[in-house]
Amino acid sequence: MRILLLNPNTSRDVTALMRATAEAAAAPGTELVPATAPRGVPYIATRAEAQIGGAIALEMLAEAPPVDAAILAAFGDPGLVGARELFDFPIVGLAEAAMLSACMLGRRFGIVTFAGALVPWYEECVAANGLAGRCAGVRALEGRFASLAEVRDEKEAQLVELARAAVAQDGADVLIFAGAPLSGLGARVRERVPVPVVDQVVAAVKLAEALVALRPRKATAGTLRRPDPKPSLGLPAALAARLAHAG
Amino acid sequence: MRILLLNPNTSRDVTALMRATAEAAAAPGTELVPATAPRGVPYIATRAEAQIGGAIALEMLAEAPPVDAAILAAFGDPGLVGARELFDFPIVGLAEAAMLSACMLGRRFGIVTFAGALVPWYEECVAANGLAGRCAGVRALEGRFASLAEVRDEKEAQLVELARAAVAQDGADVLIFAGAPLSGLGARVRERVPVPVVDQVVAAVKLAEALVALRPRKATAGTLRRPDPKPSLGLPAALAARLAHAG
Amino acid sequence: MRILLLNPNTSRDVTALMRATAEAAAAPGTELVPATAPRGVPYIATRAEAQIGGAIALEMLAEAPPVDAAILAAFGDPGLVGARELFDFPIVGLAEAAMLSACMLGRRFGIVTFAGALVPWYEECVAANGLAGRCAGVRALEGRFASLAEVRDEKEAQLVELARAAVAQDGADVLIFAGAPLSGLGARVRERVPVPVVDQVVAAVKLAEALVALRPRKATAGTLRRPDPKPSLGLPAALAARLAHAG
Amino acid sequence: MRILLLNPNTSRDVTALMRATAEAAAAPGTELVPATAPRGVPYIATRAEAQIGGAIALEMLAEAPPVDAAILAAFGDPGLVGARELFDFPIVGLAEAAMLSACMLGRRFGIVTFAGALVPWYEECVAANGLAGRCAGVRALEGRFASLAEVRDEKEAQLVELARAAVAQDGADVLIFAGAPLSGLGARVRERVPVPVVDQVVAAVKLAEALVALRPRKATAGTLRRPDPKPSLGLPAALAARLAHAG
Amino acid sequence: MRILLLNPNTSRDVTALMRATAEAAAAPGTELVPATAPRGVPYIATRAEAQIGGAIALEMLAEAPPVDAAILAAFGDPGLVGARELFDFPIVGLAEAAMLSACMLGRRFGIVTFAGALVPWYEECVAANGLAGRCAGVRALEGRFASLAEVRDEKEAQLVELARAAVAQDGADVLIFAGAPLSGLGARVRERVPVPVVDQVVAAVKLAEALVALRPRKATAGTLRRPDPKPSLGLPAALAARLAHAG
Amino acid sequence: MRILLLNPNTSRDVTALMRATAEAAAAPGTELVPATAPRGVPYIATRAEAQIGGAIALEMLAEAPPVDAAILAAFGDPGLVGARELFDFPIVGLAEAAMLSACMLGRRFGIVTFAGALVPWYEECVAANGLAGRCAGVRALEGRFASLAEVRDEKEAQLVELARAAVAQDGADVLIFAGAPLSGLGARVRERVPVPVVDQVVAAVKLAEALVALRPRKATAGTLRRPDPKPSLGLPAALAARLAHAG
Repeated sequence: MRILLLNPNTSRDVTALMRATAEAAAAPGTELVPATAPRGVPYIATRAEAQIGGAIALEMLAEAPPVDAAILAAFGDPGLVGARELFDFPIVGLAEAAMLSACMLGRRFGIVTFAGALVPWYEECVAANGLAGRCAGVRALEGRFASLAEVRDEKEAQLVELARAAVAQDGADVLIFAGAPLSGLGARVRERVPVPVVDQVVAAVKLAEALVALRPRKATAGTLRRPDPKPSLGLPAALAARLAHAG
Repeated sequence: MRILLLNPNTSRDVTALMRATAEAAAAPGTELVPATAPRGVPYIATRAEAQIGGAIALEMLAEAPPVDAAILAAFGDPGLVGARELFDFPIVGLAEAAMLSACMLGRRFGIVTFAGALVPWYEECVAANGLAGRCAGVRALEGRFASLAEVRDEKEAQLVELARAAVAQDGADVLIFAGAPLSGLGARVRERVPVPVVDQVVAAVKLAEALVALRPRKATAGTLRRPDPKPSLGLPAALAARLAHAG
Repeated sequence: MRILLLNPNTSRDVTALMRATAEAAAAPGTELVPATAPRGVPYIATRAEAQIGGAIALEMLAEAPPVDAAILAAFGDPGLVGARELFDFPIVGLAEAAMLSACMLGRRFGIVTFAGALVPWYEECVAANGLAGRCAGVRALEGRFASLAEVRDEKEAQLVELARAAVAQDGADVLIFAGAPLSGLGARVRERVPVPVVDQVVAAVKLAEALVALRPRKATAGTLRRPDPKPSLGLPAALAARLAHAG
Repeated sequence: MRILLLNPNTSRDVTALMRATAEAAAAPGTELVPATAPRGVPYIATRAEAQIGGAIALEMLAEAPPVDAAILAAFGDPGLVGARELFDFPIVGLAEAAMLSACMLGRRFGIVTFAGALVPWYEECVAANGLAGRCAGVRALEGRFASLAEVRDEKEAQLVELARAAVAQDGADVLIFAGAPLSGLGARVRERVPVPVVDQVVAAVKLAEALVALRPRKATAGTLRRPDPKPSLGLPAALAARLAHAG
Repeated sequence: MRILLLNPNTSRDVTALMRATAEAAAAPGTELVPATAPRGVPYIATRAEAQIGGAIALEMLAEAPPVDAAILAAFGDPGLVGARELFDFPIVGLAEAAMLSACMLGRRFGIVTFAGALVPWYEECVAANGLAGRCAGVRALEGRFASLAEVRDEKEAQLVELARAAVAQDGADVLIFAGAPLSGLGARVRERVPVPVVDQVVAAVKLAEALVALRPRKATAGTLRRPDPKPSLGLPAALAARLAHAG
Repeated sequence: MRILLLNPNTSRDVTALMRATAEAAAAPGTELVPATAPRGVPYIATRAEAQIGGAIALEMLAEAPPVDAAILAAFGDPGLVGARELFDFPIVGLAEAAMLSACMLGRRFGIVTFAGALVPWYEECVAANGLAGRCAGVRALEGRFASLAEVRDEKEAQLVELARAAVAQDGADVLIFAGAPLSGLGARVRERVPVPVVDQVVAAVKLAEALVALRPRKATAGTLRRPDPKPSLGLPAALAARLAHAG
C-alpha cells in the first residue's frame, strides 16, 4: 500500500521529520511517498496561510503519483474537504487523525502547540470537525523560538508544562502535541504527562491504513461526490485537468 | 467612500450584474470599484473551488487599489477570515451580509440557490458563521440551466416556488436568494414570496457602508490581528509582499 | 427617510445623548425622530424591568408618527420580537445592531457594561439572538456611579480596563460598550482598546438604513406575520386599536 | 399552604377551568387562590401579547395577597423570570411545570396546542428553558374554533390525532396538551394516546407544592437576587412600590 | 401511595439517612418502602461502578414489592433509562429530581459533592439529561474523609465554602448538594449559602408524588415502551422473568 | 499483538461471524482472541439490556487473558467508559470505531440497523460520543426476521434500500450497517450504495491496531484514571479483585 505524505508547507526538514515518525509506525507493506510543497510558506500558521496552502495542497494532489491514500500532513488540515471532493482515494488530515484517535482515549483531548498564532486556526479546525465538545482547549507557547525544525527540542520542558496544565486545569484526558514540527515529541515525554499522548503522525499513518482496509468507494452521491466538470483559467495544468475531468 | 466589489470568479458578466444592483443601493458618495478574478473558475460552487478561489481573492485584495472597505462578492465568502487577518480595511462577505441582515427580519432565514452543488458549501458557511440556529435550510434548483448570467430569468418561477416552500415547509421568516447570479431577483419577485426577501448585494453594500461608518481600527490583538511577517516561495508578488510586511 | 429613535426608558438626557451620536452617523436624507418613554423606569436593568419596559415600547410604537423604520434604543432590546409581529415597518434593536455589526469585525465580541445588574439580561439577549457562540462574554463595572448620563465619563478608565480584559482574557476580537448611557464612548477610547469597538447607536442607525434600503415587505406568513385581530381590556387606546386591527 | 393560581389572561372561565383541575390535584392542606387579569387580552397567543401580559402578571403579583407560592397559569410563562427577580416566594410556570414533569416520563416530549399562532411563542419558551433537546416538536390545530373555553371539547378528536402524530412522526415519548383551555383534556384521552400525557395544571400544582416543601430562601446573590430599589413613573402603585422596595 | 426508595449501594446507613429526610418531606398518605442493594459497592462513584450498580438496580426493581412509584436513590441515577423501559410504574432519579427542581429556582444550578471521583459521572449525568446549559458546574471536596455516613458533618464547612464559590465564581443561582450522604445538609446550611438549596431527597419524594398524581400510563410506543420478550442466561430469576414477560 | 474480541452477548454464532470479518482485516501479527458472554441476553437491543450487558462486559474484561487491546464488540458499546476507567489496555467500541472511521469519509454518516428497538440506544450512543452533529440519522428495518445470525442475508435488499434512503433523504455521505449481525454486509453491497460503507468490525480491528501503535499509557489523572480501590459484595471474583486493586 502506498500512502502519500503530503506536506503543504515548503519546509523539507519538517517533511523529513514526519517521514521518520511515519515509517516507524507503518505496517509491513506500507510505503510512504513524501511530498513537500513547491511553493507557499515554510509553515502555515494562520487562516490566510491555510487558505493559500490548502489551494497548493490541491495542486499537489493533482500532480501526485498513484497512491492508495494520502495524509494531509499539516495540523489544521488545509484543503481537506475540497480534496475529498476532488480525488478518488481516501485522504486523512493530521489534525483529524489525531483528534479521532484521541477520542478513543478520553472524554476530552487537550491540544498543545508551539505558537499562539496557530490557536484560532486550530480551534476552528476542531469546530469544523464537530468535535468542540470533545476538546478541552488549545494551549500554545508564548514567545519566539530559534528554529522550526528544532522547536520540539528547544521548548520540550515548556511544552510538557503546557500539557500538564491542559490536564490539571482544562480537564484533558488525553493530549495532542499539534503541529508537524512536534512530531515524535509524544514518545519522548510519555512519562512526564499523566495521560495518554497521541502522536499526530502515528495516528495519521494508522488511520490511513484503516481507510485503505475499509476499501471505500468514491461517492457518487452526497456532499463528497466528484464535482461536475468545470473549465478554469490560469490554474496549474494538472489541477485544471482534474477540475475539467480531463485528467 | 470607495468600496471594492471583489468577484473571486472569472465571470465578468456576473460582476456587471452585481455592480448594477450595488450602485442602485449605494448611498450618495459611495463609489464602487469592481474587480473580477483574473484566474480561477467562472463560478465557485464547491469546497474545492472555494479553496482555490479564496486564495485568489487574497491575491486580488493584495493587488487592489486603496479602498475604504471591500465586499467579497461570492456567496459562501471564500477566503473571508484570512482576508480579515491580512488586510487593514473592513471586509464583508456576500453571504455574511445577507444572513446578518436577514436576522433583523425574522427568526430564521431560508436560503434558495440555483444549483445543488452549492448546498454543502453554503451550509458550511452558515455553520462557520455560527448561524445554524437562525437558518431554516438551504434549497436548490435541480437540473441544468442554460447560462449562469441568465439563470435568474430562466428559472424565476422555480426559484419562487422554492422560496415559498422554504416558508411553508421549513419555517423561514425571511428569504435569501443566494449566489451572485441571483442578484436583483428579490426585488422582482417581492410580491410573490410571503416574507421579506434580502438581496445579497444590497445587504453587502449597506453593511460595508455601516462598517466604514463604525471606523473600526485594525486589531493588534485577538484572532484577527495581522500575522507576523512571513517569507514565502512562488506566490504572486503583491501577496508575498503583504505576507512579508513588505508592501 | 424617517427613523424613530425609541427610548423605552424615561431618561430624556439619555435620549439626547443617543440622538447626538445617531445624527452624526446618519446618511444625508435620514431624519431621526426621538421618543422617550412617558412612563416606566429611568433605566431598564433587569428582566422584570425589561418585561415592563418592553410592553411600554409597544405602546410607544402604536402611538408613533409614520416612520420608515424604528430603533428600539435600549441595549437588551425589550419587546423587539413582539414589535416585529405587531408593526409593518422594520425595527432594529440596539443590542442586535451592535452584535450583528460586531460579527463582521471578529469571531467573537466582548460586551462591557456599567452595572452588574444588567449582565443576566444581556446574556439572555445574546442567547435569544442565537449568538452565544459569537460572544466572548459580558463584563460589568462593580460598584456605584454618580449619574446615569455621566457614567461614561466618570468611569471611562475602568470601562477601558474591562474592554482590555475582554480581549486578553475572554478572547474578544471586537468590543461593544453596551447600554445607552455608553453611547459615543467607543470613538473616544478607540486607541486604548486593541480591537475594533462597535458603537451601538452608530450600528443601529446604519442597520436601520440598511433595512430601509432592503425594502422588506410585511410578512404574511411565518412567525412574524401580523397576529389576528384581538379584543383587549384596559390597554392604552392606540395599542388596543393596533391589536384589534382597528388602527 | 396557599398557592396563587394567576391567570394573566382576562378569561374568567379559563381560570375556573384551571381551578377545577388544580383543586382535584392539590394535596390536603393546599389552598388555591385564583386570580384573573383585570386588563389585557382574553388569551395570550403571540410574543406581542406575551410582552404585555407578562407585565400585567407582574402587576398582579405585586397586588396579590400573601401566598406560599404562585403558579403563572398561562402556557408560555409570560413574565416568569422577571417575577422571580421581583418576588420572594417561589413561582412556577405552567409550561415549565409541564415540561419538567414530562422530562421524567420520556426522552423527548411533544407539545400539542389549539392554534398555530401559539407555536412560535411556545417554541421560544422551550428554548428559553434550555429544553430544546428534550422537545420533539410543537403541533397545532389548524383553522378556527367556536369558543376558547370549549375548544378542548369541540376539537378533542383532532387534538388526539395530533398527539398520535407527535408520537409516531416526531418521536415523542410523552405528550403535553398546552394552553390553559386544554386543562383536564389529558385525563379524558388517556387511553387514546400511546404514551403518558402530562396535564399542565396538575404538574404546576404538584411542582408548586414541591417548591414549598423545599423551603427555598430568596436569593441574595446570582441572577435572581432582588433588583436594587428603582424609582418609576406612571406604573400601578403596588408594582411601583415593589420596584422601589417601598412595599 | 407507596414509593420505593431504592438505594443501589450496599450502605444501609445511607439508606437510613435518606429515609429520614424522605419521610419528613412526604405528604400525608405517602409510605416509603426502603431497599438497600444486596450486592455491589458501598458507594457508586465512577462510571464502572455505575454500570454495575445500574444493573443491580434493575434486579432490585424486578424483585420489589408492588409500589406506585420508585426513587432511584443514588445521585447519577444509574440504570434509570433502562428501568423506565422495563417497568410500568413511574421512576425518578435523585439527580434528575434535584436538577429539575433546581430549574424552577434559577437559571443555572451548581452541584457540590464530596469526592472528586464523582465529578465525571455527575457531569455525564447532567449532559445525558440535556441540562448542561442549565448547569453552572460541578465542584467537589478534595482529599479523604473519615466515614461516608458522616462526611456531611465532618466536612460541612468546606462544603459550604464550595457552595459559595459555585455562586460567586460559576454563576450558580441555586445549589444542589449531590450524593446520598449529603441528604439533609441543605436545611442545615440554608442561611450560609446566598441562593436556594435543593435537597435531593426532598425533591425526589415530591416529584415522585407528582408523577403519581399525573397517573401516567405505561407507554406502548416511543423509546420507553416495554421491550419485546427476550430470553436470557444466568440472570437473577426475577429480572430474567421481567425480560421474558414471564413475571 | 493480541486483541480481545469481546462479544457481550451470548450468541456464539455472532462472535464467529465477527471473528471471520476481523481476521480478514487484521494486519500480519495481529491475533484475535474471541470471547462470548457466559450470561446475559443473545442480543443486546435496549437500554435495559445494555445496562446489564455492560456490567457483564466488565466481568469478562476482568477475567480475560492478557491482551494488548480489546474490542467491545456490540454496536452501542455497552460499558465502554467504565471499562476504560477500570482497565489498563486500550479498548475500542464497535460503534465508536465505525463512527470515527466514517468521519474521515464524509461530513455526516448514516446508520442502518435491523431492528427498531435498537434505534433509541444507538441514538444515545451517537450523542454520548459527541457526534450527533456528524450523524445524518438512524434507520431500522421494520418487522420480524427469521434468525439473528442470518438477518443480513434474509434482509439484504431492504437494508440496501434503507442505506440508499439515508443518502438520498437524510444527507448521509457515508454509511454504517450497525449491529454485530450485519458484520461483513458492507463488502457485499458496496456497489449498490452510492457512498462509502464502513464495516464496523474492520474499523474496530484497524482502530484497535492504531491504539496499540500509539502505545498509550494508562492515565493517572483525568476522568479515566483508575478508580481508587473499593470493596464490594457479591460480585464475580475477578471483577471484585479488579475493583479492590487486588488482582
